[in-house]
Amino acid sequence: MDTESLTGEFRIEHDLLGDMEIPAQAYYGVHTLRAIENFPITGQSIGLVADLVNALAEIKIASALANRDLGMLDEIRADAIVKACQEILAGNLYDQFKVDLIQGGAGTSTNMNANEVIANRALELLGHERGQYEHLHPNEHVNMSQSTNDVYPTALKLATYRGCERLLARMQSLQEAFERKAVEFKDILKVGRTQLQDAVPMTLGQEFHTYSVMIGEDISRVQEALPLICEINLGATAIGTGINTHPEYASYARNHLAEVTGLPLITAPNLIEATQDVGAFVQLSGVLKRVAVKVSKICHDLRLLSSGPRAGIGEINLPARQAGSSIMPGKVNPVIPEVVNQVAYEVIGNDVTISFAAEAGQLQLNAFEPIIAYSMFRSISHLSNAFQTLEVNCVDGITANLDVLQEHMDRSIVLVTALNPYIGYQNATSVAKEALHSGKRVYDIVLERGLLDQAKLDAILHPQALTAPRLPIR
Amino acid sequence: MDTESLTGEFRIEHDLLGDMEIPAQAYYGVHTLRAIENFPITGQSIGLVADLVNALAEIKIASALANRDLGMLDEIRADAIVKACQEILAGNLYDQFKVDLIQGGAGTSTNMNANEVIANRALELLGHERGQYEHLHPNEHVNMSQSTNDVYPTALKLATYRGCERLLARMQSLQEAFERKAVEFKDILKVGRTQLQDAVPMTLGQEFHTYSVMIGEDISRVQEALPLICEINLGATAIGTGINTHPEYASYARNHLAEVTGLPLITAPNLIEATQDVGAFVQLSGVLKRVAVKVSKICHDLRLLSSGPRAGIGEINLPARQAGSSIMPGKVNPVIPEVVNQVAYEVIGNDVTISFAAEAGQLQLNAFEPIIAYSMFRSISHLSNAFQTLEVNCVDGITANLDVLQEHMDRSIVLVTALNPYIGYQNATSVAKEALHSGKRVYDIVLERGLLDQAKLDAILHPQALTAPRLPIR
Amino acid sequence: MDTESLTGEFRIEHDLLGDMEIPAQAYYGVHTLRAIENFPITGQSIGLVADLVNALAEIKIASALANRDLGMLDEIRADAIVKACQEILAGNLYDQFKVDLIQGGAGTSTNMNANEVIANRALELLGHERGQYEHLHPNEHVNMSQSTNDVYPTALKLATYRGCERLLARMQSLQEAFERKAVEFKDILKVGRTQLQDAVPMTLGQEFHTYSVMIGEDISRVQEALPLICEINLGATAIGTGINTHPEYASYARNHLAEVTGLPLITAPNLIEATQDVGAFVQLSGVLKRVAVKVSKICHDLRLLSSGPRAGIGEINLPARQAGSSIMPGKVNPVIPEVVNQVAYEVIGNDVTISFAAEAGQLQLNAFEPIIAYSMFRSISHLSNAFQTLEVNCVDGITANLDVLQEHMDRSIVLVTALNPYIGYQNATSVAKEALHSGKRVYDIVLERGLLDQAKLDAILHPQALTAPRLPIR
Amino acid sequence: MDTESLTGEFRIEHDLLGDMEIPAQAYYGVHTLRAIENFPITGQSIGLVADLVNALAEIKIASALANRDLGMLDEIRADAIVKACQEILAGNLYDQFKVDLIQGGAGTSTNMNANEVIANRALELLGHERGQYEHLHPNEHVNMSQSTNDVYPTALKLATYRGCERLLARMQSLQEAFERKAVEFKDILKVGRTQLQDAVPMTLGQEFHTYSVMIGEDISRVQEALPLICEINLGATAIGTGINTHPEYASYARNHLAEVTGLPLITAPNLIEATQDVGAFVQLSGVLKRVAVKVSKICHDLRLLSSGPRAGIGEINLPARQAGSSIMPGKVNPVIPEVVNQVAYEVIGNDVTISFAAEAGQLQLNAFEPIIAYSMFRSISHLSNAFQTLEVNCVDGITANLDVLQEHMDRSIVLVTALNPYIGYQNATSVAKEALHSGKRVYDIVLERGLLDQAKLDAILHPQALTAPRLPIR
Repeated sequence: MDTESLTGEFRIEHDLLGDMEIPAQAYYGVHTLRAIENFPITGQSIGLVADLVNALAEIKIASALANRDLGMLDEIRADAIVKACQEILAGNLYDQFKVDLIQGGAGTSTNMNANEVIANRALELLGHERGQYEHLHPNEHVNMSQSTNDVYPTALKLATYRGCERLLARMQSLQEAFERKAVEFKDILKVGRTQLQDAVPMTLGQEFHTYSVMIGEDISRVQEALPLICEINLGATAIGTGINTHPEYASYARNHLAEVTGLPLITAPNLIEATQDVGAFVQLSGVLKRVAVKVSKICHDLRLLSSGPRAGIGEINLPARQAGSSIMPGKVNPVIPEVVNQVAYEVIGNDVTISFAAEAGQLQLNAFEPIIAYSMFRSISHLSNAFQTLEVNCVDGITANLDVLQEHMDRSIVLVTALNPYIGYQNATSVAKEALHSGKRVYDIVLERGLLDQAKLDAILHPQALTAPRLPIR
Repeated sequence: MDTESLTGEFRIEHDLLGDMEIPAQAYYGVHTLRAIENFPITGQSIGLVADLVNALAEIKIASALANRDLGMLDEIRADAIVKACQEILAGNLYDQFKVDLIQGGAGTSTNMNANEVIANRALELLGHERGQYEHLHPNEHVNMSQSTNDVYPTALKLATYRGCERLLARMQSLQEAFERKAVEFKDILKVGRTQLQDAVPMTLGQEFHTYSVMIGEDISRVQEALPLICEINLGATAIGTGINTHPEYASYARNHLAEVTGLPLITAPNLIEATQDVGAFVQLSGVLKRVAVKVSKICHDLRLLSSGPRAGIGEINLPARQAGSSIMPGKVNPVIPEVVNQVAYEVIGNDVTISFAAEAGQLQLNAFEPIIAYSMFRSISHLSNAFQTLEVNCVDGITANLDVLQEHMDRSIVLVTALNPYIGYQNATSVAKEALHSGKRVYDIVLERGLLDQAKLDAILHPQALTAPRLPIR
Repeated sequence: MDTESLTGEFRIEHDLLGDMEIPAQAYYGVHTLRAIENFPITGQSIGLVADLVNALAEIKIASALANRDLGMLDEIRADAIVKACQEILAGNLYDQFKVDLIQGGAGTSTNMNANEVIANRALELLGHERGQYEHLHPNEHVNMSQSTNDVYPTALKLATYRGCERLLARMQSLQEAFERKAVEFKDILKVGRTQLQDAVPMTLGQEFHTYSVMIGEDISRVQEALPLICEINLGATAIGTGINTHPEYASYARNHLAEVTGLPLITAPNLIEATQDVGAFVQLSGVLKRVAVKVSKICHDLRLLSSGPRAGIGEINLPARQAGSSIMPGKVNPVIPEVVNQVAYEVIGNDVTISFAAEAGQLQLNAFEPIIAYSMFRSISHLSNAFQTLEVNCVDGITANLDVLQEHMDRSIVLVTALNPYIGYQNATSVAKEALHSGKRVYDIVLERGLLDQAKLDAILHPQALTAPRLPIR
Repeated sequence: MDTESLTGEFRIEHDLLGDMEIPAQAYYGVHTLRAIENFPITGQSIGLVADLVNALAEIKIASALANRDLGMLDEIRADAIVKACQEILAGNLYDQFKVDLIQGGAGTSTNMNANEVIANRALELLGHERGQYEHLHPNEHVNMSQSTNDVYPTALKLATYRGCERLLARMQSLQEAFERKAVEFKDILKVGRTQLQDAVPMTLGQEFHTYSVMIGEDISRVQEALPLICEINLGATAIGTGINTHPEYASYARNHLAEVTGLPLITAPNLIEATQDVGAFVQLSGVLKRVAVKVSKICHDLRLLSSGPRAGIGEINLPARQAGSSIMPGKVNPVIPEVVNQVAYEVIGNDVTISFAAEAGQLQLNAFEPIIAYSMFRSISHLSNAFQTLEVNCVDGITANLDVLQEHMDRSIVLVTALNPYIGYQNATSVAKEALHSGKRVYDIVLERGLLDQAKLDAILHPQALTAPRLPIR
């Protein structure tokens, strides 16, 4: 039970459905309380997502200022609303945002929770008591010129943007970690593999540089998805027709919001479309899924390359992070890549959830935005966290197992491909076959068969040269 | 920061990787602390899932008793372990289970968190200090004859079983709610629809009885999946070969566990297979997905049938649960079905996550069980919660909109199908066409065209009789 | 262009929308032709799925006989319908089933394609010309007492059942192939691995027996899903109320159908529910997904265990099936497991498609059954084909690489776990650490440190005994 | 059986595994035949995907010309290869591309099928017999400087690009169809709906314009994904190191390929990354999923808005395309949107398949590209076909049901929101409540209660003005 209700004091609030007792100390009101009763799903309230609460406060500031500029809202009320929102942004009132993250109503309860908290705090700032809405009303003043249907998706976009900024920073940092390893390992020759079979030579540096490049490309893809996230529908109100707004409200509000947030926001060209379409989230989620798929692939590789320590591939060592087993002494497991793989699977599942929710939207609104938000926020924050632990607790400490790398090169037949242009694919196949069956070196067999003279063979098989294109050796 | 660490006192613990300072008041130890550092992913610790923590305690009790019975563990230590576990079951130590739900290491950190908390509490009960593992050791005594690889999946199964029991109770209750409505509405005739087009008559009771039947079938499917959940691999240790266990340990431990839990547990016939296979979770998740798909379909129907209030289908009324809009006065939305739809989408996404994690298992173990558990637990608990709010806050209060139902029957042409056997499909088609274009009643057109005499027509089109098979009218 | 239309002769048929020219030689009619125009999606017609076409013919036989028995249809027409259907079952008319597998209309076009082909062939058998429907009508006679909404799902179930029978036979055969290998490899000791890290000993026979057990369990799961597939809604007609059917039609038709097909069919207890619910397909698809997930895991293992040949794990050899590379001579790839992995991914994707289609059903019918069927049929047949090539072209030819298996055992530290009960987890950890860093054998370090005497150590570390539970060594 | 093999004549070809009899008339060779035996999965051969076969031919032309330019390949052989490829492009040899679309081996069989067909046809053009590879060899000459690992993904990209071009044309055309309807319906006032509940007014033109805007945005997203598709790895050979290529080969080959295809191709900046990364396909598939999600939403709307005809929303009429039912005369169903919904579900499922295949890639190559290709090609072509039938067979013929639209406006309370700024949210709520309960008009209640005078009320509620922002009425 909340401490609030222990005081035994309540105020009465009223809505469409009747009266309700609100804990006297609560900043939220009747709409919030009904939502708490209706949606006891996850036990996780919106107040846990600071980005979302902050975004709501920023929107309410921008809207109050726009309404004030346009003569719709008086200075005093506008000022009180702004001040209350600033307190939210300072982190003081998160515990008043109590609605469950998964909720029906297309976000109405989230918006009303914000409207009520802001109204009640503003009332206090104006010297009134909580609940005295005749002085400043959650709907009429805090929500003026707004609807859940523009406030909520706009708030989701702001929160998503902030999450992506953090994610991008973590991706950048992880990329640099891989790049450092690429430089560190640049001269280490190794067996390249396709289909888990020994293929042709490469360097360990090339292998790690690849991971750097991959993450770099994914950074670009996330960045490309952000402009869609910056396209907001504030001013759309209920369905995008802008009912009950001043013709200049949308642009005033957007300008204020851009200033408050520092983000490059634009108003969607068609607000009706923007209000029912959640395509920007589907697009971003698709990109996050791509990010997840790729980092999961990288982590599979890290686990595979570090398999062993004695009966696996064992070419690299991941830093030991914890005892690996409750029963097997000395066992050290690739726990960090493993946790990243799992986050990736969550993100991919979230993408399916988002696809379902997006596809189920009907007519002028998508009522399923809350589950989109819930899934998106988890994807973004879990990925960010996974990238951080991958960088700090794993990649930074990876070392090369030089003996194994060299031994693999020595006993494999990956050099034989380089002979194709000189002895032909069929001869090379025959050499490879003998090498595999007899255990002899490719080099020796070629000489034995007199397929090439030693000087040319040495030139062809010079290992370092095999890791890049080169002119034919005559 | 935890209050524990504010005391400024630490004890030192040691593992494979070196020393660590543990808050003196903590019951967990070095393995837990390393895991906390390694897996800062969700911020949600395993202690939040009471079913899981309880299951771990139950397993440790059963194992201690089995080891005692087989002469592996002395009575005093066994007794202390059992007592410590009972305190956990009483809910006293949940806050010591601090590892993140999403973790690498295949659950080792979860198992070690349990081993450490139990060991330290048992040490206290024996009059020692926390950390004096020479008297009672997390691995050697608490984890005796065990490995994470049998303890963790067994714990997941116990926790899953308990979750499913609650889910089944909620499903049963929801089914009954639909059945009550089926009875209440049994005599109300209405238009049945296929492909959103008016089809043939039925009763509203038949429509709601269908939902009852659907949920009843899903109850059966969940029940069918439970025996697989009762098949545990305790005694498998690391990979299922039972290394380091007494030949009778598996059966002793299972018997104790069955008694402690009251569940019909059986030991998997092949422990190697059981240790690497997460098929039971895949199966159950597939069934939960089915449950989700079907309840989502039902909720779509409820939203559709209650659409309007004036410009929709409007045949039923959902109880108003909250003001529906921050801008549109008087609007009441189907917020409860909406939240259920969203939970369903989460469950379907979770199923994809689980498929990925299951498919990625390699060789003798699936390292990705934590994300399976995380996803499964959310699916089960969110579905349970969704079913409860659907029952209590929606279905129980549904009323029929008799005027609309009657009006739809009167103006539709759903009666024409009944004429097929008497005037033929082509004649009936022609009558239907005229009815739609002219607005005339099917009845009148048939008479006008002399296709049937009035007596026979009346007999054929007797509305109630149209909702079931019947003998041809001669 | 079809040869039919080259004759330049047409007959005219008529429907709700007007007249159409039908190729004179065609057995199909106007409804089919409209569907061909409406659904040019995949280019794959229903005639390619013999199971489906046969199922339609069997249903039409059963229905005609039931109608005849009940006095609804005269003997002559019933007989002609049955004969026409028998010709279909003999494979003569598949090319007349021309509707695209992916189609709108909830299967109406499929049912009408069947009705038209059967009617026209029956007309010929009665001495009439195609299109003379006044003598025997596709809707009035062939479709008598039926609706697409019971015929189509019933046909899907029959076809699914037949597909599953073939799948089960292939699974059984693959299981036996793995079991043969389990026996062949039963005495070969090897390193067991968890999390890709060397863990504890096992036998190669245990490893392959596991795959046999896994597939055996999946066989059970598929078998358990089949009773739901045997529950049909024939007699439901449009929405399950059985409009236009004789009260005994459903049971007569089911009995005839059970006899014609030899399948243990039952009529769904609630036909309204059965007509709108596609849960049986969701359930089966969930099981097929499980089958896919598990066989994909097995194939990952096979690829991993055969990786190399020189720089991988290389413990087993898959039979060479084709030259592995267009550029790398001598390379042989695990192409058969690779193709199975890919089929598994298709099946998992199909399951998502089926979930979407099932969830989107509205009110009294699911209009999206065709995509469910299309996805299900592919899942079943591709899995069957994949299992066959896996058995014949891969598993049967797998050999053990004894040298590598032995070398891995020799140099790994997997024996150390067995020391836990005798020297304690912490001592064992220390031994393991030294072994890994120094390259010394675990055995030697234990003796050096005087932790155990040699006789006891030998007894503990006897390798074969490590692959099963055993009594403590005193 | 193929006609080829009926001749009873064979030639013998040889590979790593031994000899095989090839039908004498076959242009393909031993590698193709082995692949046919290994991969009997779908029964659909690569020859059915003209885009893919053409792309292979184009790559082989470009490569031969590059090799010729760089002095690696003589003019005569180069010329013969080019001519053979041109015959393929002319469509003459598709039936020789016999490998199953789903195949193991990472596309090697597809590449070798092309190499063999081209070599044998080129041999004929040079006056030799098929199989006389000493004159012109599939690997040494046709595949010179290439590997499957650069040829196959490059071919997939070319084929994907061509498919997307056609898809974009269909999307453009569909967008225009919606836009025409938007213009046609621009003055028709209607009830806008959120959460299936009557909300505020809009025009039917606005509703259809939204669909046009949505598709327009999706066109942009597909176009944005294409540059990644134009980034090829030709010149990478086995793993991206360019082994066995001339340092200028990659750029020569790309330039020739750009010229041959007319596409804006670029060489990937890092070929090692490009060879193992299938991110471009994941990205495109994510976008196709978005396209599918949105068009599915549109089709749900069309079905909903046209529901009825008498007992639904019934605001628009879809053109009748076929008789809707085998049992219900006169029923016309929304079969075209239904088929589009289903294709969308397939595309979403394919995206999951592609995610799995992409995530499973290991080390220097993704072996699962064939299933990516198979899924991608189907997504693209089925979407294209679905869009075409949606445009031509549905959208073009949509009409407005003016009576119903007007009736819905008249009896709904969607005007009440416009009163908020003038009478306040709470008063408006009270008015709405009375209107709903009493059936009275909002207009009358406001006057009765004296909340506003008639002149101002008329100004506020002027219907057309309600579909856009406007200045406050004083």
